Amino acid sequence: MDPAYIKVRHDRGDDEIAVEEPLEIRVDGEPLAVTMRTPGHDEELALGFLYGEGLIRGPREAGLTADFAANVVEVKGPLERDPGRRRFYTTSSCGVCGKGALDEVAVQSAPLPPGPIVARALVASLPDLLEQPTFERTGGLHATGLFESDGRLLLVREDVGRHNAMDKVVGRALSDGMVPLGERILCVSGRLSFELVQKAAVAGAPILVGVGAPSSLAVSLAEERGITLCGFARRGNVNVYTHPERIRSR
Amino acid sequence: MDPAYIKVRHDRGDDEIAVEEPLEIRVDGEPLAVTMRTPGHDEELALGFLYGEGLIRGPREAGLTADFAANVVEVKGPLERDPGRRRFYTTSSCGVCGKGALDEVAVQSAPLPPGPIVARALVASLPDLLEQPTFERTGGLHATGLFESDGRLLLVREDVGRHNAMDKVVGRALSDGMVPLGERILCVSGRLSFELVQKAAVAGAPILVGVGAPSSLAVSLAEERGITLCGFARRGNVNVYTHPERIRSR
Repeated sequence: MDPAYIKVRHDRGDDEIAVEEPLEIRVDGEPLAVTMRTPGHDEELALGFLYGEGLIRGPREAGLTADFAANVVEVKGPLERDPGRRRFYTTSSCGVCGKGALDEVAVQSAPLPPGPIVARALVASLPDLLEQPTFERTGGLHATGLFESDGRLLLVREDVGRHNAMDKVVGRALSDGMVPLGERILCVSGRLSFELVQKAAVAGAPILVGVGAPSSLAVSLAEERGITLCGFARRGNVNVYTHPERIRSR
Repeated sequence: MDPAYIKVRHDRGDDEIAVEEPLEIRVDGEPLAVTMRTPGHDEELALGFLYGEGLIRGPREAGLTADFAANVVEVKGPLERDPGRRRFYTTSSCGVCGKGALDEVAVQSAPLPPGPIVARALVASLPDLLEQPTFERTGGLHATGLFESDGRLLLVREDVGRHNAMDKVVGRALSDGMVPLGERILCVSGRLSFELVQKAAVAGAPILVGVGAPSSLAVSLAEERGITLCGFARRGNVNVYTHPERIRSR
C-alpha cells in the first residue's frame, strides 16, 4: 500500500487525501528536527534537509527506526557544525526552523557554475513533464522534479510540504553523487519562495523553474546567488526574473 | 504605497509580485520568532501567532520598532508560560517552529461550543466572498477570511504564508474582543493542513472551510477537537469531512 494517501469518508462520498504526519530527524540519537511530511523517502528527506541547512556536505547513513509507526529517521553524524541551541520544527510548508534572528535566516552556498543554456520552450514545458501520481489522486501535494538540461526527467518527489519535496530530491541526488547539481534543472509545482531558492542555491542548481509566482525575496536572493529564476511556467511560456543569460529564445 | 507587492521586471515585461520579508517578533525586547511574511498588519500577525501558540490569552500592546526597515515587532509581555528553549523561525508557509519532539507539536485548546448550524450552499459560497486584492495582482498570496454565520465577511487578510494570513485574522479578532470565535466561520483560500486546523481550534472556531484538499492529519485533528472541516469548497459545493452536524442541506 502506498503510504502517501488514504481514503476518507465525507458526507457526500469518499476521497483519497494526502497523508501528513510528523517525522522526527535524529542525528546520532539526538533529536534535531520535526517536519510535517508525507511518508515515503524519509531518508532522502532527512539528508536533503541537513544538506540544505549546511549541516552535512555529503551522503550519510540514514534509516527509519525499526518501529515504523514511530516516524523517526536516524542519521549517522557527526554534523559539519554545531546546530547550536536551534531545534527545528517545520510544518507542511516550512523550510527551515528554529532560527531566532533575521541574520540567521540565510544559509551560505558556493558560487554557481555558468550552468547550461536552455531554450525557453524547453523550460516552459518542464511542468508538463512532472509526474504527480499522488496529486492526481488527492489534489493535496506539491512536487519537485530534477531534470537534465535536455529536459529528461531524472527524479520527482511529492509531499504535502513543498520544501519537503525539494529536500527529498536533493537528498536522493546527494546519495547518487549528483550534488552539486551543476547542469541540471529543478522544477517545482507551485510558487517560488525564499526557502526554495535558498535550497536550490545550496544544492548548486543554476536554474529553478516554478509553475507559480515568485515572491520578492525569492527574486532578490536568486539575483544575488546567480540563479536563473523562472516563474509562471505554463501554457508554453515562462517569465525569467533573474540571470536570463542561461535562457535562449529558441 | 501598498507594501504587499512590488513591480519587478522580467525578460518579457514586468509583473507585480508579492513581497516576502522576514519579521522578527520580540517579547519584552527578547527575540522569540522570525517569520517570512508579507508586510502589513504585523502587530496582528504577532498577536495571532502568540495566541495560536498558547503564549498569550488576550490582547497585548504591540508595535513595529521606529525603524520600519528593521522588520521587528515588539510585544509587551509577560507570556502565559515560558516558551522554554524553543526559538521559532517560520518560512512563508510554516505555522509553528522550534519544537523538537513529536509530542510537542500539539497545542492545547479549550472544547468548542456547539457553534452555528449553517446551510451547505452558504459554506460553499464563502470562497467567492473572500476579497483578495493583492492575489489578483500577484497570484502569490494566500488569504484567510472571518465570516459571521450568515455569510457576512468581517475580515480578510492576505500573506505569502497561509499560516500568517490566519494569524493576522486571529490577531485582529483578538484585539477586537471576538476570540473565542464562537459562532463565526474561518475560510482559507488553499489547502487544509494540520497547522491551520490547530490554529482554528485554539481560536475557538467551530467551522473551518478551505478551497483545497485536507491532509490526513487535518482531518483527524478536526475530528478530535470537534471542528467541522469543509474542503474543496468550490463551484457551489463542498465536502464535509468531520462533524457534519453543523451543516444542514438547505
